[in-house]
Amino acid sequence: MTTTGAGRPRLSTRKRPGATAREEILDAAAELFTTRGFTGTSTRMIADAVGIRQASMYHHFATKDDILAALLLGTVAAPVECAEQLRRDCEDPVVGMYALALFDAGQLVASRWNLGALYLLPEVTTERFAEFRGLRADLMARYAAFAHDARDAIAGPDCGSVPLELPFRLVEATISSRSDAAVHDTTSPLTPDAVADAALRALGWTGPTDEIARRATALLDRIPES
Amino acid sequence: MTTTGAGRPRLSTRKRPGATAREEILDAAAELFTTRGFTGTSTRMIADAVGIRQASMYHHFATKDDILAALLLGTVAAPVECAEQLRRDCEDPVVGMYALALFDAGQLVASRWNLGALYLLPEVTTERFAEFRGLRADLMARYAAFAHDARDAIAGPDCGSVPLELPFRLVEATISSRSDAAVHDTTSPLTPDAVADAALRALGWTGPTDEIARRATALLDRIPES
Repeated sequence: MTTTGAGRPRLSTRKRPGATAREEILDAAAELFTTRGFTGTSTRMIADAVGIRQASMYHHFATKDDILAALLLGTVAAPVECAEQLRRDCEDPVVGMYALALFDAGQLVASRWNLGALYLLPEVTTERFAEFRGLRADLMARYAAFAHDARDAIAGPDCGSVPLELPFRLVEATISSRSDAAVHDTTSPLTPDAVADAALRALGWTGPTDEIARRATALLDRIPES
Repeated sequence: MTTTGAGRPRLSTRKRPGATAREEILDAAAELFTTRGFTGTSTRMIADAVGIRQASMYHHFATKDDILAALLLGTVAAPVECAEQLRRDCEDPVVGMYALALFDAGQLVASRWNLGALYLLPEVTTERFAEFRGLRADLMARYAAFAHDARDAIAGPDCGSVPLELPFRLVEATISSRSDAAVHDTTSPLTPDAVADAALRALGWTGPTDEIARRATALLDRIPES
């Protein structure tokens, strides 16, 4: 609670999950951006949703863009860290590829708000979001490196021309799958396991993946939470 | 040019591709929605971009929502029609699955503006866009039917639990791939062939796909333009 000391006393008791005022602001903004749209959300609405004054919010974030940047960075920071750990600790690129897809799809599916739905906002192409785009590009490059090594290790027939970006795209497909499942209650969203499995098959893997899944899960259990 | 007769004389000569004023309005709106955002675009901006008066635009579209609805419907109408033709004319579900993915990814990639980037707008979850969501759900169901039959025909090992929505998601992955390629000039967007190939591999296909691709292309060449 140290960060709330920077602003005025809270108008009301806590309305939001989050250990700090900063986390509550991020949670409220994530809800509003994904349900009302980024342009359609004002900083006033965010402050009201948290139950703080606008002036208090500006102690944490100077602009609405800053809040969006923090939220977007949060969606790629953990998988980049996971990819780095896997690069160091995992000798089997097929297991590493599966583990990265499983971890990343898992965090995209489990997040309270479907923040990936904001990736294609026109605003995100501007200079303010260059840091996010850079970190996401780093993540894509790490996926491509795992995909390259996994494809070579699998050495499947006729897979020499498989685009290395397919595993990354399959993982991000959880974003629209989750969005569709929220609207059409007839479908269930793609699971992280299904996505990780499909990522390997896209790279030429043809057998069962149970053993790979078991090893990937054991590996992820050993990686410290970031 | 019959439709322009409904409004005032044009302020200027043609600025936009499109055989009719309606098509020019749709093209201008598609550019503005995908580059400035839907909320950040006014009907005035659209009229200015076409070079007509706002009053003339209202002869074609009563609201900005109506323009977005027409644009979104346009992204799913052709693949639904293609899927129907393939259902009637194609006896091999593997070729049919490949052909549908190839056609749909092809039209998503070749469209002048990346309209799929608008699918996740919060506005699209409202009642006004129920017709679009219904037609897109119809398209998803047609994909799932082809995926089901193709998976059975392939009878690949351990593919009994493959989610039938993967081919549809792989095709829609061209949307974010195209968006990323426009920002990061180091990557090239996913091609329709690569996506159709991956759709079959996700369903358990393990061999080469050249012959399937040849038959799918020949089939699509026989389908009349809708």
